[in-house]
Amino acid sequence: MSQEEVVVLNFWPSMFGARVIMALEEKEIKFEYKEEDVFGKKTDLLLQTNPVNKKIPVLIHNGKPAQCRFWADLIDKKVFDAGKRTWTKKGKEQEEAKQEFIETLKLLETELGEKVYFGGNDNVSMVDLVLISYYPWFHSWETIGGFSIEDHTPKLMGWVRKCLTRPAISKSLPDPLKILDRVSQIIKIHEFFYGY
Amino acid sequence: MSQEEVVVLNFWPSMFGARVIMALEEKEIKFEYKEEDVFGKKTDLLLQTNPVNKKIPVLIHNGKPAQCRFWADLIDKKVFDAGKRTWTKKGKEQEEAKQEFIETLKLLETELGEKVYFGGNDNVSMVDLVLISYYPWFHSWETIGGFSIEDHTPKLMGWVRKCLTRPAISKSLPDPLKILDRVSQIIKIHEFFYGY
Repeated sequence: MSQEEVVVLNFWPSMFGARVIMALEEKEIKFEYKEEDVFGKKTDLLLQTNPVNKKIPVLIHNGKPAQCRFWADLIDKKVFDAGKRTWTKKGKEQEEAKQEFIETLKLLETELGEKVYFGGNDNVSMVDLVLISYYPWFHSWETIGGFSIEDHTPKLMGWVRKCLTRPAISKSLPDPLKILDRVSQIIKIHEFFYGY
Repeated sequence: MSQEEVVVLNFWPSMFGARVIMALEEKEIKFEYKEEDVFGKKTDLLLQTNPVNKKIPVLIHNGKPAQCRFWADLIDKKVFDAGKRTWTKKGKEQEEAKQEFIETLKLLETELGEKVYFGGNDNVSMVDLVLISYYPWFHSWETIGGFSIEDHTPKLMGWVRKCLTRPAISKSLPDPLKILDRVSQIIKIHEFFYGY
């Protein structure tokens, strides 16, 4: 039997760390606790295992950080918010939203790296399902915002096409054209009432 | 073998619904799809199964809504935010934060009902771990805000005491007095620099 190694980086008053530790204790999973002083200098281990937001808690399983929930949250925050602003805002705010949206997709493309899916080469993970759930909206955001996701993140669009070969995914997603139609209606109503 | 019944309430353009459906399809779990018109009249089923935020998607398993994630999110949003404002705000804003904090705990007490834990009578669930992870902060919020949680939600405090009988929980949580000490220091530093 191989030895499983679990390390938790935490800062003692954190409620987000406490729940991870309690869950491990409840499941009787042995782990090594490492205290991080979040007000002091961050350790190399924290910076390596959580390079984007550099926050505790981090759960490290056999040297690999458990970041699934982190990426899913990042997508729901950044892609949702910036994507929405590409069509609800105008002018400078719209440009900023487009930049932010593209930057987030680039970050995700880097995270995907050479893997087929975020979950690895054979299986989709929660991160794949969360991100692809935004794909039907891409067409509307590109059309109204006047930009092309393919131009900025071609590898990520390759990942989209790969996802769409899975029947479970392609048959579950709404039609991008139907969404554009609905979004266009909403914009027209908005322009009618507010004049912009 | 008993028949498992899974129902999903969704609104077709929703990315939050799409991921639930894709996950069920990937796992080859049969389910019944029910469309909700979120702009129209909400169905009785939606109001019954998601009475607090009345939003899709809802996953209903054998007649019971899967609300675990919902309650965990509500705690992280409402308890975290209102709790923090009970000591970072003053005057009217502090009073509002206290009210909001107590109202949230009352809502949670109602959800707990006559069960020993949120997860049932025998086991703690994710909701239990998420909520109890805030318990070490209660003492600070009560002391600085000048109120008693026990007075408002005695049953919920009974649940706290029950949770603390579990070694996995009691040994994992930080010391409430140590947190109050740290919080008091932060307040003093704040008063020194800003004068209130």
